[in-house]
This record gives sequence, structure tokens and C-alpha cells, in this order.
Amino acid sequence: MADALFEKVAFIGIGLIGSSMARRMSADGLVTTIVGCARSEETRDKAVALGVVSEAFEDSADAVDGADLVVIATPIGSYGAIAKAIAPALKPGAIVTDVGSVKQAVVDAVAPHLNTENAFVPGHPIAGTEDSGPESGFPELFDGRWTILTPTDETDAAAVEKVKTLWQSMGAMVDTMTPSHHDMVLAITSHLPHLIAYTIVGTATDLEDDLRQEVVKYSASGFRDFTRIAASDPVMWRDIFLNNRDATLETLQRFSEDLTALQRAIRRGEGDTLEELFARTRKIRRGIIDAKQAD
Amino acid sequence: MADALFEKVAFIGIGLIGSSMARRMSADGLVTTIVGCARSEETRDKAVALGVVSEAFEDSADAVDGADLVVIATPIGSYGAIAKAIAPALKPGAIVTDVGSVKQAVVDAVAPHLNTENAFVPGHPIAGTEDSGPESGFPELFDGRWTILTPTDETDAAAVEKVKTLWQSMGAMVDTMTPSHHDMVLAITSHLPHLIAYTIVGTATDLEDDLRQEVVKYSASGFRDFTRIAASDPVMWRDIFLNNRDATLETLQRFSEDLTALQRAIRRGEGDTLEELFARTRKIRRGIIDAKQAD
Repeated sequence: MADALFEKVAFIGIGLIGSSMARRMSADGLVTTIVGCARSEETRDKAVALGVVSEAFEDSADAVDGADLVVIATPIGSYGAIAKAIAPALKPGAIVTDVGSVKQAVVDAVAPHLNTENAFVPGHPIAGTEDSGPESGFPELFDGRWTILTPTDETDAAAVEKVKTLWQSMGAMVDTMTPSHHDMVLAITSHLPHLIAYTIVGTATDLEDDLRQEVVKYSASGFRDFTRIAASDPVMWRDIFLNNRDATLETLQRFSEDLTALQRAIRRGEGDTLEELFARTRKIRRGIIDAKQAD
Repeated sequence: MADALFEKVAFIGIGLIGSSMARRMSADGLVTTIVGCARSEETRDKAVALGVVSEAFEDSADAVDGADLVVIATPIGSYGAIAKAIAPALKPGAIVTDVGSVKQAVVDAVAPHLNTENAFVPGHPIAGTEDSGPESGFPELFDGRWTILTPTDETDAAAVEKVKTLWQSMGAMVDTMTPSHHDMVLAITSHLPHLIAYTIVGTATDLEDDLRQEVVKYSASGFRDFTRIAASDPVMWRDIFLNNRDATLETLQRFSEDLTALQRAIRRGEGDTLEELFARTRKIRRGIIDAKQAD
């Protein structure tokens, strides 16, 4: 068992990501004490009963009291209010980090509230499932996956190093980039795919009853692959689109143009155009398998 | 081991589906002799070396000689030519079936060539992987999956029963519907999802080198789910879109309208609209899991 990296960690939000981090920290002795904060009493009771946290608070300021590390792991629309609430209660030198899927908006929402002796290290683990709640977490979630840290010029370098070491200790590989570059890359790899998946599953949801049942029945023919990501947490995703609007819309625009071109090729019966595209896309899958991000 | 359902089966095309059927037939003793036909010598050699077929022919007419069942399992653009080539060589009473993903175009392409004593039973197993070739098949591919048969008013009922029994013996559940209804349902469950996946992976393929590498690296955030189906066989999918054009374009139109609505909600910052849709789509996933078509 490793030496503890932090004495006391407070999780603001104990869902899939927060509880997976807490479980891994406990399992590997990475921290000494883990407490949490959740708005709903049900979540607090569950998190304590599952042993994910030793104590769960309703008030975020109570949770961060005496903590060396605070992990914000709620839907990002709540970040500004949380930062404002915890700032006066933070221990001097305590590091604040997060796990949100958008980074520039998060930096803008959190950093202005904090005192200079509390570094904010924005982070984003590229890992997850479509499940939510403290019961859905598991300690191996981050094994072999990437976590992206997006410090700004103002972020304390030592704090970034500590958070990086923590993620590596939880099994992740760590990359560093600017918040805005992160948001552009994730708009393509994550936000657009989710938007498309939500749309196509929504299109099917609007079908007449009989047809919808057939879609479910024969979903193994392709549709099924979209439903997994379209089952992700609704509030979390609402906040992602609202907070990475420009990059998402720009990526969507590129996609729409490409879709229109394909539509035209089908309408005109241009088999060569279709075959050529379909052969190109096959190579990307091979790249992902080679990068060990799929099997 | 069951009694053989057919004495001799000929596969025209020995790829993922054909070789999976052949392997299952061998494993369970469902047929006595299995031969195949493939255009490429490499495929023929592989299929024989793997023991998938006992003999492999270049000429489809040679392959069907003396066969009680002929399974057409090539890209559907080739069906018309195949039907024409095998028709004179078919044994009286031999049943012809297929595994193509579009059914009305297939009925139109095949049925006119056959003699009245050779029934054509159009079929479509809703199962597959993104791999192709005789080496990618496995006998359990159809276990617990649906196969749809689309006989017309002219199709011999006894032939339909025999093909149905065969699929059930290979582990599949069997449904029957008209060719045109099949094509509409599959446009939604399969052809549109593939079209979307090919497009989004294509959009990523067109990115500058650096960015494309990052997309591969961070693909676990959603993009990865699309690359699996966008790695499917290019020629097979070219033919599907060309042969189910109207249903695919109509479904695509619905999808595009829904996507535009979502785009507008994001642009206007309408959080409630987003959250409401994202909550609805979650339920469809649950339906698919309950129907045992995902876990």
C-alpha cells in the first residue's frame, strides 16, 4: 500500500466518477479520510452505507472543512455556486480539482471565487459508463484511460503535479493541454457523438408504438450502439452542451455538411463515393484498437 | 446431434455470416455436406483450410449442383447476376435463401430468375460484427438473436417452414414480415445508424493530423462507440444504401429535422428542452436490456 497522497479528501458530488475515485483511493490507501457532499439525502445515505465516504454532508462548506483536496464532481452548471460556497471554508493550501467534461467554462466559473492560496487544477477523466449514482462506481474505472488536466498560466505547478500523481496512482495516464484545446477535442470525440446518439434515439422514441417496439427488438443491427451513450445522465449532458456551445455547434456544422454530401451520394446512386468513404473510416477503428482504447 | 435438415448446402459467399452459418451447421450436424463459392481464390483456400466448407468453387453454378439449399451471402448488389447464373443449375425442389440486409430489392432481383419449383425464401439474420471474411465467423453468432424472413404471397409455405426450422436450430429466434416493412424497420435500426456512424467517423478522418490523433487517443469518451459500426464491410454497406434508398433517405430526413431542433435548443441555451429529451432516450436503453438484446 502506497503512502497517502492527501490526508483528507472531500467529494462534492458522489456519482459514478466521484464514487469510483473514492473507491480506488480507499482500496489503494491513497488518502486517509474521505468525506462527501450530496444534495439528496438518499445519495448521502447510500454513499455512507456503501462505505464510499466515511461522512456525507448536505452543505458543501461543511464537507470541505479541513480537507487537503476538494474534488468537484457534480454537473458543471452547479460549479459557480459550489465554488462560491466552499471558498471561505477552504483550508489554506487546499487544492481544488474537478472532473467536468468542459474546461474553459469551468475555469471561468470556479477560479474567480477562490483565494490565491487555493489552487484550482481543472481535470477530466476520459472514462465512464452510462450509469449514475454512488452505487455505479468501481475502483478500476480509470485503469488505462486518459485523464486530461487543463491548468492555466496562473495555476500552481506543484498543485498540478500532486493531482497528476493522484490520477496516475488511480491507474490513469495523464495529459495536459489548455482548456480551450480540450473543449475543441472533446467536442469531436464526445459532445458531438452524444448529441447524435441522443438525436437518433430520440427520433426512434417518437415513432408509433408498434414500430418503436420493433426498433428495440432488432436493435442489435446497429441502433443498440447508440443507445448506450444516449442513456447517460441527462442533467450532466444538458450542462455540457450549454457550457461548450460554440465548439459543439461548430463541430455539428462540419458533421451536417458531411451528412448532406452522403445523402446526396445515396440519392444520386453514387456507389463509388459511398464505398470510398466507408473504406476510409475502417482505418480509424484500427487506430483506436492499436491505441488500446478499444478491443 | 439432430437429424440433418438438408443433405447438401451451398453458400454463395463465405464471409462473416456465411461462414458462421456453415460452422454452426457442421457443429450441430444440421446438414450433411457443405460447399461454397467465392470469387477470390484466397477466400476459397481459407474457407477450405478452416474446414468451413468441404469444397469451394469459383463458379456459382458448380457450387449449387445437387444442393438442397442455396444460401446467397454476398453483397446484395451481386444478387441479380448470381440468381441468373445459378437458376439453370438448381436441382428441382432446391430452396434458395439469402442473408441480405435489404429485402424488397432482393426479392425483385432474385425471384424473377428462378423456376417455379425453386422457392426463394428471403432472410436476414440481425447479427454480425464489424469483421469480414471466412475467418471472422463463429458458430454462436446467431444465439438469442432475431432472424427475419420476408416471404411474399408467392413463396412456398413449406420452404419457409424449413428455413425457419434451420434458423431456430442455429440458435436464432425467427420473425416473419413483408419485405417492405422489413426495409422500413431496418432503415431505422440499422441503415440510419450506420450512415450516421460512417459520417461522424468520416468527419473525424478529415481533421488535421494532430487533431485526428487526439480523437483516437480520447475516443473512449463516446466516439469509440461509433467506430465499431463504421468499420463494417464497405462494399456490403454501399449496396445496402443503394438498394434501400427511399426508406433510408426518409428516415434520414426525420433525423435531420430532430437534429436541427436540438441544434437550435443548444444555440438558444434552452436547458429544459435538452434535459427533457435526454431523460426520454434513457428509457429506450432499458427496453433493449429488458429485451435481452444488450447487457
